[in-house]
Amino acid sequence: MGTSSLFTEDKSAELVVESVGAATDPRLREVLSSLVRHLHAFVKDVQLTNEEWETAIGFLTETGQMCDDVRQEFILLSDVLGVSMLVETINNRSLELATESTVLGPFHMVESPPRESGDRIALDGKGEPCLVTGRVTDEHGTPLANATVDVWQANDEGFYDVQQPDIQPERNLRGLFTTDDNGEFWFRSIVPRYYPVPVDGPVGRLLKATHRHPNRPAHVHFLVTAEGHRPLVTHLFVKDCPYLGSDVVFGVKESLVRDFGEVDDPVRAAEVGFDNPYRAVHFDVTLLAEARAEASR
Amino acid sequence: MGTSSLFTEDKSAELVVESVGAATDPRLREVLSSLVRHLHAFVKDVQLTNEEWETAIGFLTETGQMCDDVRQEFILLSDVLGVSMLVETINNRSLELATESTVLGPFHMVESPPRESGDRIALDGKGEPCLVTGRVTDEHGTPLANATVDVWQANDEGFYDVQQPDIQPERNLRGLFTTDDNGEFWFRSIVPRYYPVPVDGPVGRLLKATHRHPNRPAHVHFLVTAEGHRPLVTHLFVKDCPYLGSDVVFGVKESLVRDFGEVDDPVRAAEVGFDNPYRAVHFDVTLLAEARAEASR
Repeated sequence: MGTSSLFTEDKSAELVVESVGAATDPRLREVLSSLVRHLHAFVKDVQLTNEEWETAIGFLTETGQMCDDVRQEFILLSDVLGVSMLVETINNRSLELATESTVLGPFHMVESPPRESGDRIALDGKGEPCLVTGRVTDEHGTPLANATVDVWQANDEGFYDVQQPDIQPERNLRGLFTTDDNGEFWFRSIVPRYYPVPVDGPVGRLLKATHRHPNRPAHVHFLVTAEGHRPLVTHLFVKDCPYLGSDVVFGVKESLVRDFGEVDDPVRAAEVGFDNPYRAVHFDVTLLAEARAEASR
Repeated sequence: MGTSSLFTEDKSAELVVESVGAATDPRLREVLSSLVRHLHAFVKDVQLTNEEWETAIGFLTETGQMCDDVRQEFILLSDVLGVSMLVETINNRSLELATESTVLGPFHMVESPPRESGDRIALDGKGEPCLVTGRVTDEHGTPLANATVDVWQANDEGFYDVQQPDIQPERNLRGLFTTDDNGEFWFRSIVPRYYPVPVDGPVGRLLKATHRHPNRPAHVHFLVTAEGHRPLVTHLFVKDCPYLGSDVVFGVKESLVRDFGEVDDPVRAAEVGFDNPYRAVHFDVTLLAEARAEASR
């Protein structure tokens, strides 16, 4: 044996990196090498104790064992450590041309029902009515007709339909809209409410130990797709909402905050079937051409 | 809200670090801050894709779900990434005074049976007989009487007793010895064999994908304790054994390799009840005074 292959504290990471075989996929080697170097640097930086290592092993194990068909505790861990948001942002740079992205979140688990322009998506009649209008264009401002605008949101109490299958109507507060020839879409919804991520697992304990609240500020989810363009996963956040400056998953970008303001317009209110005054928000969506999106990676 | 608290790619890690509340335990803050900074730097360094992130989430989830009472896949992952060895080494620096440490491993799961000096620990009569002798001293060379020397090892086929409960006698190849007034211990065993770590889980897939073999070179485990001294967790490795230069868990340190050489001494062979010639190894163990060990942290 060569003694160069034996363990020392100084070269611990390089020893692991060099153990990767020559026939290994180059990208796997690149990712793993960086991971190992950062992991070892972390252990050395903090001089991790045996007891802390044992705690970490137990935490990771419990996080894996908390996962099932409807709960993904490792995604939640990635979320509250800002990793999900970082990955999403790196892979969807707006280039200051397109609408910015944010995390998909765990509640896009069912298909949104196709709807006609102007439909109501709040099927339970609860919450404060809100008119949502918008337009989808490319980066040159050209309207994109036949784009799909998939929307979903929590109800007035901060729950998605899939969290309350016995209380909310099926597909409550979800809708799949199609833009018209002007690239426009509109629908009737309610003002969303902030809500907590699940805190009954190891990630909840971590939040508690670090004195962080578990809340996401109020938002409406959008997934906008159009042929030849990069799909956009994003939210609209409600201005002045609690927790807007401290989203537990770090999803808020300044460009995505809107005033869901009050509109005093009796004629328009009558047109859309709302009592006057009512709340409204407008969202102009700019998609990036697929070719340019590819080039930005 | 202050816009300084909103997400940007550049300040992603600092945003997470700053979210930790003021009342948080200072050590938890230190460890978590370093972890988050390294994790975000890793994601940025390799420009992790969404698909790779999904693969990582799946891998971690499966690793957690592979764990049960007799299998700890996260420890195995820590082992094959060199993290266990690094943590062990950081927390047990020898200061070039004491015998070097290595990983405990997953097979110290049962108590070793107390034995008298010279006892045989190979209860199944298989394998190549080997005489093990040694002496425990402090860093000044003063013998430590009444030190406990806990030993365990794999059999001639590379399995520990707990892995083969139906084949091997209970507590096969385990023993708890006590040093005499000269700090000496001795027992009769067999030459150990190299063996693979479990490869039927996600860590096994990782080893395969990175073209690494799953083997640990042959070794005898030692856990040596004496009052007022830091406990020593270590192995003796068999010189010229396969995989000595490529231990899958990076446990080999040069100072822990010994020639389990052949001895041609008919008189001594008769004394210990072995056929001549026989294999033998000697291990002088130096423990560090607890006070000095504390100061080295």
